[in-house]
Amino acid sequence: MSDESRRDFALSCPLPLSEYPRVQLAHGGGGRLSQILIEKLFLGAYGNPALRQLHDGAVLATGGGRLALSTDSFVVRPLFFPGGDIGSLAVHGTVNDVAMCGARPLAIAAGFILEEGFPMEDLWRIAESMRDAAAAAGVPVVTGDTKVVDRGKGDGVYVNTTGIGWVAEGVEISPQRARPGDAVLVSGEIATHGIAIMSVREGLEFETALETDSAPLNGMVERILAAGGDGVHVLRDPTRGGVASALNEIAGQAKVGMRLEEGSLPVREEVRGACEILGFDPLYVANEGKCLAIVAPEAADAVLAAMKADPHGREATVIGTVVQDHPGRVYLRSSIGGLRIVDMLSGEQLPRIC
Amino acid sequence: MSDESRRDFALSCPLPLSEYPRVQLAHGGGGRLSQILIEKLFLGAYGNPALRQLHDGAVLATGGGRLALSTDSFVVRPLFFPGGDIGSLAVHGTVNDVAMCGARPLAIAAGFILEEGFPMEDLWRIAESMRDAAAAAGVPVVTGDTKVVDRGKGDGVYVNTTGIGWVAEGVEISPQRARPGDAVLVSGEIATHGIAIMSVREGLEFETALETDSAPLNGMVERILAAGGDGVHVLRDPTRGGVASALNEIAGQAKVGMRLEEGSLPVREEVRGACEILGFDPLYVANEGKCLAIVAPEAADAVLAAMKADPHGREATVIGTVVQDHPGRVYLRSSIGGLRIVDMLSGEQLPRIC
Repeated sequence: MSDESRRDFALSCPLPLSEYPRVQLAHGGGGRLSQILIEKLFLGAYGNPALRQLHDGAVLATGGGRLALSTDSFVVRPLFFPGGDIGSLAVHGTVNDVAMCGARPLAIAAGFILEEGFPMEDLWRIAESMRDAAAAAGVPVVTGDTKVVDRGKGDGVYVNTTGIGWVAEGVEISPQRARPGDAVLVSGEIATHGIAIMSVREGLEFETALETDSAPLNGMVERILAAGGDGVHVLRDPTRGGVASALNEIAGQAKVGMRLEEGSLPVREEVRGACEILGFDPLYVANEGKCLAIVAPEAADAVLAAMKADPHGREATVIGTVVQDHPGRVYLRSSIGGLRIVDMLSGEQLPRIC
Repeated sequence: MSDESRRDFALSCPLPLSEYPRVQLAHGGGGRLSQILIEKLFLGAYGNPALRQLHDGAVLATGGGRLALSTDSFVVRPLFFPGGDIGSLAVHGTVNDVAMCGARPLAIAAGFILEEGFPMEDLWRIAESMRDAAAAAGVPVVTGDTKVVDRGKGDGVYVNTTGIGWVAEGVEISPQRARPGDAVLVSGEIATHGIAIMSVREGLEFETALETDSAPLNGMVERILAAGGDGVHVLRDPTRGGVASALNEIAGQAKVGMRLEEGSLPVREEVRGACEILGFDPLYVANEGKCLAIVAPEAADAVLAAMKADPHGREATVIGTVVQDHPGRVYLRSSIGGLRIVDMLSGEQLPRIC
């Protein structure tokens, strides 16, 4: 490219390149910089109605019904961690993203980017773990692809999983549907996955083993939809960027406010302790087996009961309310009554957590 | 893991770990070692009827019809090359894999693994190129994911694309359907993509610019199916491993032999020359915008005419025949009448060609 055409070209980019000349780790962190990258650069390039929904998956109307499609690349390190590994995480993450579209996952495609020299035995462990996770979720891996890159150009293995699923008639799950008065529910204790990973990296020890909460949530979503019907407005698994970033995204898209009650946020004691040691706020730490549900007030009790009836939702609870005030903002009411803004994660907190 | 459980574990792997203790570049090359990895390790882990078809995509029967799903990760280097870049390649590759299932591509999901420090401007160029390729193919990018890995743990950008599509009623495309008497057609000159990439890497110069043949083939597949109907048995885009590896795979799966006529293989003059300089056999060099079709003899003329009527198929030609002899083997008859075995690519010829 000539210098001139390069300049013209750069001018067409809706992301200000002088401000963001290079990719930073935080562009993958699930917070503000991720949002800017996606909304400016990717939507700028190929925005279309399905993509513009900015859900974790797309719902497509087809002749034969509505189809959900979701993709995720997994770059977690270490590859093996307490309670899981990159393989089970890749299956759960994609099964859950499809389920969060209100869909019943149908099949998974798996793409591997392997680094030359990666131990074959570790690849087999990961493949076995994916198999077990897929079997537990009831969603088969039906196609795949393998690429190998030269030594030093990868990090052992990266896994991409893409899932498809069917959306039942009448189900309408979308961040835009959050409305004032809705209850905000979470399916259990937050921040466990992120802290389990960080504790391995940092060499923290706990009295009881701290394992990832990574789990398939498609069964729970079926219970939620059966119990709450049209009263189920939004579903979201708060992964990178945690509960805070997920709720900020939804508040921004639905143009509503949210108020969380600090005392109601479920956090395991060891996780809270580790957060204090590491300087993290549990609201920003990644989860992998948790679901946020935003539901009409009249459906809240039934949905909460449905979550609690699921093996992965026993600690489910109501953590807040959707409000009319301060649209686009999430507030937290502390135990002593003060209000503080819960902003979106800015910068990178926990690189390569999933 | 204890040493003992590690031993037990390794014993369960259907791939002999003592023989293949580590991933080699050739495990991603599309030849014999790729096949061993897929058939032993991945099928061993999560074989199911859809995956066992070993097509480049899966066809799934659903309540609302049959759905095709295909995934591919792209690790090509350089990222930008004559006639294309990793973005257009990622769109074409996946559109084509879905089309080779006999399906009409419906939507694409895109996953990016970015290396910290990657120039944002290059990312925008790639996103724009994907947009243009998606628009030209008529297949929207509807969902995506972005991860960032630390500097030195990637190679600028890796792109995964996954496509879904509908298979029309009555269409049955599968490698198992190749049968003696069928004609083997190719939609144009072979080996162009691989040589275009290699010539950049090796600094070769040609009188005319040698560009990749990367192109979307979904339109051509529609023409082929309309012209050949049930007589269209197998479709395949011969990417990594080239025409030789693709035909070997099909011959093995259908338990038939194949005989190719050397004189009929279309290869551009510059490509043939570059192959001689670089020591490559065009039959093993990757293509990105070419399609193999194996069709019943009575459908061959109509399918050939349909290919030629498409802008990407003007040089289409018949290159061989499916035979009963030597099942699982592909032979080439030379211009002077001798026969030689065309084996599957063994080892790695062109690393990171797509």
